[in-house]
Amino acid sequence: MNIVKAISVLGSTGSIGTQTLQIAEEFPGHFRVVALSAGSNLSLLVQQIQRHQPEAVALADDSLLPELKERLGEVSSEEESFKLPNLFAGPEGLNTVASWDSAELVVTGIVGCAGLLPTLAAIKAGKDLALANKETLIAAGPVVIPELERTGSRLLPADSEHSAIFQCLQGTPWQENARLSTGVPTPGLRRIQLTASGGAFRDWSSEDLKNATIEDATSHPNWSMGRKITVDSATLMNKGLEVIEAHYLFGLDYDHIEIVIHPQSIIHSMIELADSSVLAQLGWPDMKLPILYCLSWPNRLETPWRRLSLAELGQLTFQSPDTKKYPCMQIAYSAGRAGGSMTAVLNAANEEAVSQFLQERIHFLDIPKLIEAACERHKSDHNIQPDLDEVLAVDKWSRMAVKEEVSRASNLIGKSDTAA
Amino acid sequence: MNIVKAISVLGSTGSIGTQTLQIAEEFPGHFRVVALSAGSNLSLLVQQIQRHQPEAVALADDSLLPELKERLGEVSSEEESFKLPNLFAGPEGLNTVASWDSAELVVTGIVGCAGLLPTLAAIKAGKDLALANKETLIAAGPVVIPELERTGSRLLPADSEHSAIFQCLQGTPWQENARLSTGVPTPGLRRIQLTASGGAFRDWSSEDLKNATIEDATSHPNWSMGRKITVDSATLMNKGLEVIEAHYLFGLDYDHIEIVIHPQSIIHSMIELADSSVLAQLGWPDMKLPILYCLSWPNRLETPWRRLSLAELGQLTFQSPDTKKYPCMQIAYSAGRAGGSMTAVLNAANEEAVSQFLQERIHFLDIPKLIEAACERHKSDHNIQPDLDEVLAVDKWSRMAVKEEVSRASNLIGKSDTAA
Repeated sequence: MNIVKAISVLGSTGSIGTQTLQIAEEFPGHFRVVALSAGSNLSLLVQQIQRHQPEAVALADDSLLPELKERLGEVSSEEESFKLPNLFAGPEGLNTVASWDSAELVVTGIVGCAGLLPTLAAIKAGKDLALANKETLIAAGPVVIPELERTGSRLLPADSEHSAIFQCLQGTPWQENARLSTGVPTPGLRRIQLTASGGAFRDWSSEDLKNATIEDATSHPNWSMGRKITVDSATLMNKGLEVIEAHYLFGLDYDHIEIVIHPQSIIHSMIELADSSVLAQLGWPDMKLPILYCLSWPNRLETPWRRLSLAELGQLTFQSPDTKKYPCMQIAYSAGRAGGSMTAVLNAANEEAVSQFLQERIHFLDIPKLIEAACERHKSDHNIQPDLDEVLAVDKWSRMAVKEEVSRASNLIGKSDTAA
Repeated sequence: MNIVKAISVLGSTGSIGTQTLQIAEEFPGHFRVVALSAGSNLSLLVQQIQRHQPEAVALADDSLLPELKERLGEVSSEEESFKLPNLFAGPEGLNTVASWDSAELVVTGIVGCAGLLPTLAAIKAGKDLALANKETLIAAGPVVIPELERTGSRLLPADSEHSAIFQCLQGTPWQENARLSTGVPTPGLRRIQLTASGGAFRDWSSEDLKNATIEDATSHPNWSMGRKITVDSATLMNKGLEVIEAHYLFGLDYDHIEIVIHPQSIIHSMIELADSSVLAQLGWPDMKLPILYCLSWPNRLETPWRRLSLAELGQLTFQSPDTKKYPCMQIAYSAGRAGGSMTAVLNAANEEAVSQFLQERIHFLDIPKLIEAACERHKSDHNIQPDLDEVLAVDKWSRMAVKEEVSRASNLIGKSDTAA
């Protein structure tokens, strides 16, 4: 592959963003970073601008724009060759960078609903996307899928599980005559098996979970990730959310998307084809590979990265997930089956519940109870075909519903284990 | 897939042949059996002819032709709708069936050098091949590869390991612009990992192998196969031969084809791509799946076959093969690296040595010694670009060389453990 692909990176100072830029540096001559957007880490953003010299940069928070201008001015006066990028700020600024004309691929590394709008802007502009913002499909699947069909924009999954499925699917007849995510079942694809490490409490009994602390819940055995995602991994909600993403990405119904516990996180996921053959993608637990695949797809670049050695590992183990120990999993399946606005409620309630847990306001076991209560309350307002405004409204409502429930419970008894 | 594919089955009464015909029956409306060839199992052949009503049938042994005619005459007088096929016999008859005009795919299930000539006839006729005859590439790779390029005939591997690699490769950019086996490295493919069950002596120490009996060597832990192949599996020569096949099929040099012991035989083989991503194909140990894939490729047919469940299995284990315990492996690599006529010597010497072992004339540990001695003796006559006559001559010579060595050793000391 000798083509230079022009990329725009949304959330450039976050985990996905920094790894994307590292890859762009590691493979000079393959990728040109034409646009960046970031939140508040100005020091890192300035470094990134110096190094990649993008055409456009946007700040989420427009109050930081003057400071960014000043810092870039200093760089400009020190480095003769430095060319100031076009600067933008606020939601409109993010949309501008997301749909930047010269960008061929947009990496959407902005977390949460803040990432949804620029991701939609990129889709509307017909850009291909390396998708790391999960709200795009979980909260707004019913809004996004028709847009993809309309504009021909393609979703390349950047997380390891969906990338694994995507890599395995390249070999099916599917690739030739279908686009990436239309909600239409993939011909020849019978089933998806998402692997799950089992998270921090993999080896705990259901009983012991009553004593789980924040420290326990935020230490992940395999992947180094943020605290919120590590808690999601401990509740297995991360896998429930991935099931919903897989549904929208690959068009399978929920009966054909399964979860298998695989503590070593070496098989990143599997597909079962119509004839019962199973294909799997394997690798060390490292986000760089799925990100690189998004950037180089449909080609592959030669890397000097550490080779996987199964002989060195010795064994890979598997077990069925314990539905009693991991209630979040079933809550996610139910929300997924309800579809429409319900998964937006699920996602927002989970974020709020985990946030409450990390603030030590609720117990670990309250997380599923709070999410389930929010989904239950939403049933009467459930809309199978919400528009973007409804998705955003439902997202707000769900967070508030969880907060209210937590306040109510603590007011009532002053302790959290009866929150729901 | 609604297309009816016309197939010719060489060796229809053997293991691959009978499974192919079972598949043709299991998927009515997908495959039409237009030609058959068989050895001496007339009863089964007559049944197959009744059931599939092929256009042409050939017998390897022409002395059996009158009996076949008589039996088919009886069928014809009993069943009004029965139509007599065109009958052929002998080497020319096999070639006729192999290149039968209406056949689109030829399944080559004839074992040994007897299968090489009809396989070449099919290639010369530009047919696609479901390749189960390993001599085609191991003995005659240098003859076959140029023929494939000339006629555009495509090799679809029917054994589980190469099928696994082939299935994984469907997703590489390779498929679009390359044919199946040209000896040219597959773009994006960095390495192949062939899995090996480890055979009957997997859990034996090198020391204990001195006491190995025929009964020990012919009981395979996972696959139900013939005695010869089960012994090949115990010496790991089967894997050495597969390494050579993989070299010719996928164009990788021998440094990039590895063997990993995987006792459960669930991962059938793996490929490592340029970016270090690993793809694997998994399934229960059952030849029906790779055979079906040859028949349905590039599509996949829906099967009701037992689903693979990794949770049920619990674990997959892996280890590096012990080169001291399995000397055949290194002997095969050396022969492969020498190339040309050397792998024909290797293959024939192995067949003869295993035959001597099964006749209780030599000890299990003599097998590698005899093969190595034959390869050593061939060095002075080694031809890097042999033609078909040389391949056939070398095959004969190698068997004789092994026999001579066995006779010499038993004459000398009257016992077999110094055979080489």
